[in-house]
Amino acid sequence: MLMKSCTAVLLSFIYANSFSQIVNDSSIIRKIASNILANGTAYENLRFLCKKIGPRLSGTTQAEKAVHETARIMKEMGADTVYLQELLVPRWIRGEKEKASIILTSGKEYPLNVCALGNSEPTPKAGIRASVIVVDSFSQLEQLGAEKIKGRIVFYNCKMDQTHINTFLGYRETVPYRTEGPSRAAKLGAIAVIVRSVASNTDDFPHTGLTEYNDSFPKIPAVAISTKDADYLSMVLKRKMVTQVFVRSSCKMMPDVKSYNVVGELRGAEFPDQIITIGGHLDSWDLGEGAHDDGAGCVQSMEIIRVLKSLDIRPKRTVRIVLFMNEENGVRGGRKYAELAKEEGKNFLFALEADAGGFTPRGFGIDMQARQREKILSWKPLFQPYGIHEFNSAGGGADIGFLKPLGTALAGLAIDTQRYFDIHHAGSDVFEAVNRRELHLGAFAMVALVFLVSEYGL
Amino acid sequence: MLMKSCTAVLLSFIYANSFSQIVNDSSIIRKIASNILANGTAYENLRFLCKKIGPRLSGTTQAEKAVHETARIMKEMGADTVYLQELLVPRWIRGEKEKASIILTSGKEYPLNVCALGNSEPTPKAGIRASVIVVDSFSQLEQLGAEKIKGRIVFYNCKMDQTHINTFLGYRETVPYRTEGPSRAAKLGAIAVIVRSVASNTDDFPHTGLTEYNDSFPKIPAVAISTKDADYLSMVLKRKMVTQVFVRSSCKMMPDVKSYNVVGELRGAEFPDQIITIGGHLDSWDLGEGAHDDGAGCVQSMEIIRVLKSLDIRPKRTVRIVLFMNEENGVRGGRKYAELAKEEGKNFLFALEADAGGFTPRGFGIDMQARQREKILSWKPLFQPYGIHEFNSAGGGADIGFLKPLGTALAGLAIDTQRYFDIHHAGSDVFEAVNRRELHLGAFAMVALVFLVSEYGL
Repeated sequence: MLMKSCTAVLLSFIYANSFSQIVNDSSIIRKIASNILANGTAYENLRFLCKKIGPRLSGTTQAEKAVHETARIMKEMGADTVYLQELLVPRWIRGEKEKASIILTSGKEYPLNVCALGNSEPTPKAGIRASVIVVDSFSQLEQLGAEKIKGRIVFYNCKMDQTHINTFLGYRETVPYRTEGPSRAAKLGAIAVIVRSVASNTDDFPHTGLTEYNDSFPKIPAVAISTKDADYLSMVLKRKMVTQVFVRSSCKMMPDVKSYNVVGELRGAEFPDQIITIGGHLDSWDLGEGAHDDGAGCVQSMEIIRVLKSLDIRPKRTVRIVLFMNEENGVRGGRKYAELAKEEGKNFLFALEADAGGFTPRGFGIDMQARQREKILSWKPLFQPYGIHEFNSAGGGADIGFLKPLGTALAGLAIDTQRYFDIHHAGSDVFEAVNRRELHLGAFAMVALVFLVSEYGL
Repeated sequence: MLMKSCTAVLLSFIYANSFSQIVNDSSIIRKIASNILANGTAYENLRFLCKKIGPRLSGTTQAEKAVHETARIMKEMGADTVYLQELLVPRWIRGEKEKASIILTSGKEYPLNVCALGNSEPTPKAGIRASVIVVDSFSQLEQLGAEKIKGRIVFYNCKMDQTHINTFLGYRETVPYRTEGPSRAAKLGAIAVIVRSVASNTDDFPHTGLTEYNDSFPKIPAVAISTKDADYLSMVLKRKMVTQVFVRSSCKMMPDVKSYNVVGELRGAEFPDQIITIGGHLDSWDLGEGAHDDGAGCVQSMEIIRVLKSLDIRPKRTVRIVLFMNEENGVRGGRKYAELAKEEGKNFLFALEADAGGFTPRGFGIDMQARQREKILSWKPLFQPYGIHEFNSAGGGADIGFLKPLGTALAGLAIDTQRYFDIHHAGSDVFEAVNRRELHLGAFAMVALVFLVSEYGL
């Protein structure tokens, strides 16, 4: 049975592509894989980003340093042009390390691992000490209503659903408690919120991430709590062992500052005005080292230049690497890039984003016209020897999404998602959590797809 | 194009299986996945094996303890019968921590991270101090010949080829230096060997593993050296900065001792005499905690009992979990099981081994008759929603391989191989290197396949 269907795939593949072309492409792709697995530099570039620069929150000196160092690296790799795109970014600072604790009915205090949510407002200097009310959903919050919520701290103890195979699905279901939770609680009179970290494991790291205030309601302070401490807080609340909870944060939104997207190009030999955009985001949250999110996507994107130069492959279409600034708390880099692209007026043919961690690649999410999608799917047999099987429709990415109005075909590198939300936006997103071979295989998948689009268009 | 081929797969799938059956199977398999991802116990059982018991080299008290504790766990999970299969195992002890260093021409000593190879003989008590000669292959060794090798320490600096996608291929190419290297060097008069760790990364952990002496030649001491120190030793040798190398080990082969395979069964409701054997190996090397190798395979196998009981699935055929003893340095458990199986005289229909680490499952290696293979391939669409795509022929495993003469169809759980040889047989194979979701997805894949074979036979 399977034999039959494999033959069908193979035949349709051969039908769409001449035989010698297949042999040639598959041999070039094999060379790309061997080059990266044996001599890839993405891993050492990531070590540099993580260990010599560190976390790169928008507006920090580290983000600034990362701009100049990655521009230098792309020049050294042999990019035809490297330039910066200036933009203004929000500058949110965390301030002093947050403090929080449970005041137990026994009189004892139990310290909690918390961190302010990105872009959130601080507590008063002395902190907030108030009674806490736990909810497991927005509907429970609404049911309790202003009467029960007013003057209290709302604790969203909403767990990521573990039963999804793709952990991004669980993340998307749960993340609204982080993004909308503070304002929805404020609407009912809450004075602060504590959000269970959106995470797939149980440990002591609180996971930060963007919160978005609704201007119609008071901007109340909002912190994330580690999953372990969320379980503890929930348990002592159930047992009525809690008098109050104390939270203090001193984060602050400062005036916008100047920053940059970093762009490195290999000019297309035949169609220089057809632009293939590939990128990740250079900024990161401040708690870890932004290793998987998204140092990985940056070093993988840059690797494309190194590999093409090293194998002496001159792309037919222009390959443009973009390290976007400010994906995490503003997406200003993505917006700016699309704005400048529109002015540039060239054909922004295709864009590929890598922003899901440096794990083993499993495929691509593709968001484009049916005809274009079919072309990419016809290349599937070239990817299967590398364990890359999954070509689905959940494509694109936060930064390249702004290119959609220009008619750009979008794709995202799809990776094995099992470990990502253990470390996402947390202090544990460090270089040591990245595996060299997994990172390099992801870079390989990107180079291979970019090579094919550059050769054959879409 | 792809659409056509997908339809072909689907049609052939529907052709082979009635529609209601497919719907039913796919819904049971979804329940199995959700049950394991939400409530799986494999991860906590592995923590117990690693942290409360520790490494489980054959013949040690830890291996003994693991036998009794896993038997207890399977009873508690609700196995119909749990019993032990007695056997004799070799007892090799490492003794004092090994020492090794380079005596540099400058007079300084540079310490090296080494460990004795499993089953190897010790150096004299005072250690060995001799000149060292590096080779990168057996053919280079032969070329140098007895004249150059005699009285010296041979350093096999043979690197795993990084360009394979499946790291097991690189392992298989390189591991002969560890297994055969000592005797092949002894044949030419070497007095000891240092083998570069068979590893996919560069760090300070030496990787042990079985060496096999050829009785025709002197049994010379053999140690593995960490990849980092192998690089250093190679570099200083090239620069002629080395006077001698010192190695000391005090390992020893002791008389055989009694040990056990642990067996837990769910009796088949319709065909109790058709046996489905599933297992991993309970023993491990002594340097880490035997977490991926092969605590993972053991807890995943045991999980099958828990899930089937918890979902109230009574298997039609007998599901027999076997935790094999002594895979690492003797394979006595696998041999004993097959010997007893032959005596038992039942139909040993199918065997599935998990011994490649607790990483994300990618498929199964299947080694069986064409007709049986076709049946398994007809189930492929049931696995694809879980990212399980790869059904190839590299099947079986070291322990279940002994069942082949009984006509048993063999399969091995195939996992994402990228990280395995970073930690394989090293001090870094600890619980912390295992991810809960990855481990549980592997268990899921096993339960799903066992369920299908138990329902439909082969």
